[in-house]
Amino acid sequence: MRYSRIFGNNTLRHNPSSSKSISYSLLLRGGYVRSLGSGLFALMPLGMRVVDKMKNIIREEMDALDGQEMDLPLVVPQNLWRKTGRDQIIGKELIRFVDRHGHDLVLSSSHLEPITQLARLSINSYRDFPRFLYQFKTKFRDEERVRCGLFRAKEFTMKDAYSFHRSYTDLNNFFPKVFRAYRNIFERCGVEVITAKSAVGSLSGDRAYEFLMECDWGDNYIVKCPSCGYQANLDVAKGYKDIHSGIPRRSEEISTPGCDTKEKLMDYLGVEDFEIAVTTLFKTLSGRVLVVCRGDYDISHEKLSRLLEEPVIGPASEEEVRAEGLVPGFLFPSNEITGFKLVVDDAVAESDNLIVGSDKKDIHLKNASFGRDFESSIVGDIVRIRAASECIQCRTPLEEVRAIEVGNIFKLGDFYPKSIGLSFTEENGEVSYPHMGSYGIGLGRLVTAIVEANHDDKGIIWPHGLAPFNFFLMGIGKSFRVKNVVEKLAEEIGSDVLFDDRHESVGVKFKDFDLLGIPYRIVVSTKGLQDGNVEFYERKTGKSWRVPVEMAVKTCRALSKESI
Amino acid sequence: MRYSRIFGNNTLRHNPSSSKSISYSLLLRGGYVRSLGSGLFALMPLGMRVVDKMKNIIREEMDALDGQEMDLPLVVPQNLWRKTGRDQIIGKELIRFVDRHGHDLVLSSSHLEPITQLARLSINSYRDFPRFLYQFKTKFRDEERVRCGLFRAKEFTMKDAYSFHRSYTDLNNFFPKVFRAYRNIFERCGVEVITAKSAVGSLSGDRAYEFLMECDWGDNYIVKCPSCGYQANLDVAKGYKDIHSGIPRRSEEISTPGCDTKEKLMDYLGVEDFEIAVTTLFKTLSGRVLVVCRGDYDISHEKLSRLLEEPVIGPASEEEVRAEGLVPGFLFPSNEITGFKLVVDDAVAESDNLIVGSDKKDIHLKNASFGRDFESSIVGDIVRIRAASECIQCRTPLEEVRAIEVGNIFKLGDFYPKSIGLSFTEENGEVSYPHMGSYGIGLGRLVTAIVEANHDDKGIIWPHGLAPFNFFLMGIGKSFRVKNVVEKLAEEIGSDVLFDDRHESVGVKFKDFDLLGIPYRIVVSTKGLQDGNVEFYERKTGKSWRVPVEMAVKTCRALSKESI
Repeated sequence: MRYSRIFGNNTLRHNPSSSKSISYSLLLRGGYVRSLGSGLFALMPLGMRVVDKMKNIIREEMDALDGQEMDLPLVVPQNLWRKTGRDQIIGKELIRFVDRHGHDLVLSSSHLEPITQLARLSINSYRDFPRFLYQFKTKFRDEERVRCGLFRAKEFTMKDAYSFHRSYTDLNNFFPKVFRAYRNIFERCGVEVITAKSAVGSLSGDRAYEFLMECDWGDNYIVKCPSCGYQANLDVAKGYKDIHSGIPRRSEEISTPGCDTKEKLMDYLGVEDFEIAVTTLFKTLSGRVLVVCRGDYDISHEKLSRLLEEPVIGPASEEEVRAEGLVPGFLFPSNEITGFKLVVDDAVAESDNLIVGSDKKDIHLKNASFGRDFESSIVGDIVRIRAASECIQCRTPLEEVRAIEVGNIFKLGDFYPKSIGLSFTEENGEVSYPHMGSYGIGLGRLVTAIVEANHDDKGIIWPHGLAPFNFFLMGIGKSFRVKNVVEKLAEEIGSDVLFDDRHESVGVKFKDFDLLGIPYRIVVSTKGLQDGNVEFYERKTGKSWRVPVEMAVKTCRALSKESI
Repeated sequence: MRYSRIFGNNTLRHNPSSSKSISYSLLLRGGYVRSLGSGLFALMPLGMRVVDKMKNIIREEMDALDGQEMDLPLVVPQNLWRKTGRDQIIGKELIRFVDRHGHDLVLSSSHLEPITQLARLSINSYRDFPRFLYQFKTKFRDEERVRCGLFRAKEFTMKDAYSFHRSYTDLNNFFPKVFRAYRNIFERCGVEVITAKSAVGSLSGDRAYEFLMECDWGDNYIVKCPSCGYQANLDVAKGYKDIHSGIPRRSEEISTPGCDTKEKLMDYLGVEDFEIAVTTLFKTLSGRVLVVCRGDYDISHEKLSRLLEEPVIGPASEEEVRAEGLVPGFLFPSNEITGFKLVVDDAVAESDNLIVGSDKKDIHLKNASFGRDFESSIVGDIVRIRAASECIQCRTPLEEVRAIEVGNIFKLGDFYPKSIGLSFTEENGEVSYPHMGSYGIGLGRLVTAIVEANHDDKGIIWPHGLAPFNFFLMGIGKSFRVKNVVEKLAEEIGSDVLFDDRHESVGVKFKDFDLLGIPYRIVVSTKGLQDGNVEFYERKTGKSWRVPVEMAVKTCRALSKESI
């Protein structure tokens, strides 16, 4: 391909965006992507070639697990989302609209509901398992904050895959295979990943793992134990909690005028945050729950959802608290007034002499202890661990790293089949529900990670097999001979060479070669031809060597093979 | 691939939809597609394989013209559509929504605006031509009437391509190349197309051709001259018009109480429709125009738009007519009151003694003649031809056939570049605007056409190179020998065979083979194996022949090659 003909060959010397991400800057500068609006991107022909290669790597790994490629619509009936309740859980991120016939529709931000619906039309019997399906499909998420170009766009392409199994055991046996396939994909893409237990979030499932790459602007915080190797996303990580137990003293009401926040209370009473137990009213899909945790911790919605076995929507507003007959800022950890479930963090349950609300305005209760002053059967770890917590397994101080997520896999169980009504007949005639797994890789995130992990200060260095072209060809000198040799080589190397035939200086062409990140540069010069040679140069290592003209094509073939 | 593992292998004996289209019924029954809502479809794994093959045929033809594949977002800023005015011209079909940051967005029903915007960021100089870009991209059109499954869905995938040229001449030279590429694509897909001049519609351009396939439920009406070969879409077709000229009589006002429609007027005065000239107020992007045509013709918006050189939105409502100080139903073909442009159909201009409105309620003017009683410089053919009109070229009576559109190509000129602000610098330093072409093939329409043209009463007969698999393999008999041979053949033939290993009867398997439309069936039976043979059967011709077991794989290889 002649570079002069490529749409988007006007490379940029400077970063046109204010993004912190070097990868986005390089992709923009090299003409791989262009922005068309906030969170809306076009893949230019060079970018398309890279993404096609990524897709083929992913396809190979999916097909090796008997994956079947298919294609779901982006627009789906909102009704399907109502069946799983996710219509309520997912807020503004999900674009809803009504078509001219009055159908409520959504722009899929994920495809769990339609794939389950489709399986309902296709899976009837125990013989119809397993099924492993995947697609490369546009998603739309109206993100509150778009970030770093393709990394977090509103419209993006995801490889999403779904597996259906006859039993939870079958899902458990299949799951590690996808785990390995994912590791292969990232390895082949030149991205070193760490894996971590992660939040299931709005997907409603049993267990999730993230594949992440360390990155200093990452928005994921991963907790790592340097000693035992424990690794988890901060949302779900467990850590050793300090327990402040002691001999329970007599509880008593104290006056705390206007102290409707933890901070005011600490200030007024002159106490530390760990001496307080904060009670909060939370909304869930099925109603309301009271949640109590110690003042030195924050509630993890993820952990709370798991303990409750249902998705948590978020804390109730002041008005919603009042509507339940409670006093905002002075909630007492009890279900007596409201009858709501009470969830107690284990650090509260094990601590003594805490300051809690009293259900009366401007009054708190001092020296409250779980089991005596308040009680619940729902006790567990529902808080985010603090910086420098100790490892729950080996008590080594945990370390925190920033990372970007590039993929995730979920054991979803039978939640979706049960919600959508996907059942099958067992061999013995009984009706049962399949167990599902779901597996995602965002292509924009992956290409971001690839470039973050493979660049230098001059530009991208594509890993083998991902560059838009393997060879970059150019001539130096205006002689007829140079022109002839270059044209001939361009033709003979064929579709895998980018021939820079632009009217630009040698310096500009060298800079663009570095920026584009093509693995090998071939220079035909008047000087080199005097000895019958052309010069090969490897982008990654900076090594250059001479090759006789007549061996140039053969050398390309050999280098191409190596690079697969 | 084992058929038992294919998602969607539950074929249906009867048409589950009420659609008239045999193709949709066969695609549903064979498990190629499934519906997820009104106008919303999923491609099942078998359908995906067919569509991938279609895409590769299209890619080859596009790449042969130096086409570069890319990918635009589906969601684009509405602002781009405002720049071309298409935001106003296109009504409910275009889904508009606002994101959480208040940006007005649309679901692209075509991608002309964003590709032009992107070109604005990439084309600067006369050296940057030509550019030929294409993508396979989801579109969404909130169609008033969805039809025949994939044929007219709300969400669909289109191969859309765009060319940018330095001059109109360059566009004219390039255009026939795409025309030929399109003919190749349809030929390779086994679809016999007719081409016809067509409406530019809301695209705003100079000239358009449609590629259509004759089909008895088609929604396009094509006019053909059996004598000279003239062919055009009914919207733009020209035909010979009867002219009723005569000696102009003195014009006079007549009382026509309540006659505010053509029908009432005919009834009240006892005249024929061709004796009346109807004046209508039309809305255009830039304002209002008065349009007059003879009562025996209907106005073609397409022809009117072309004559005016701007898109016509539609007739004004009664209220809008009144708002201009005019009397609905009694409009006089003059711009005196309003100053609006007057457009006169040539049949009106050449006829005499017509009945026209008077701009006064309940009064018409009799014996009106163009040039004497009303006058305009904008005269042309602005009406749809009537059934059995005579050919404008050779006066042979025209024939009408129904057809479905499978592709279209447009010479757009410089409308989009001028609207979006895409200019470039000429060699002499002058600023100029590129000329554009746009070229579409709807994949859902194409697959519909392929099946409509290639089926019998038992099922689909995929043309060579489009079937999801080239071979369908099955065993008859439960012997160990049969099982062994079948399994071995399945492995050796490889990825191009669908091995029907389901627990179904021979009859069911034969029926499904016929339904799926795979080109060759290979049967391994106890009886055949006694002579060392397997049986090959060709779906298209019904021919069967025996092949020695050990030659079966070689036979497949040979048949595959033939089929490319």
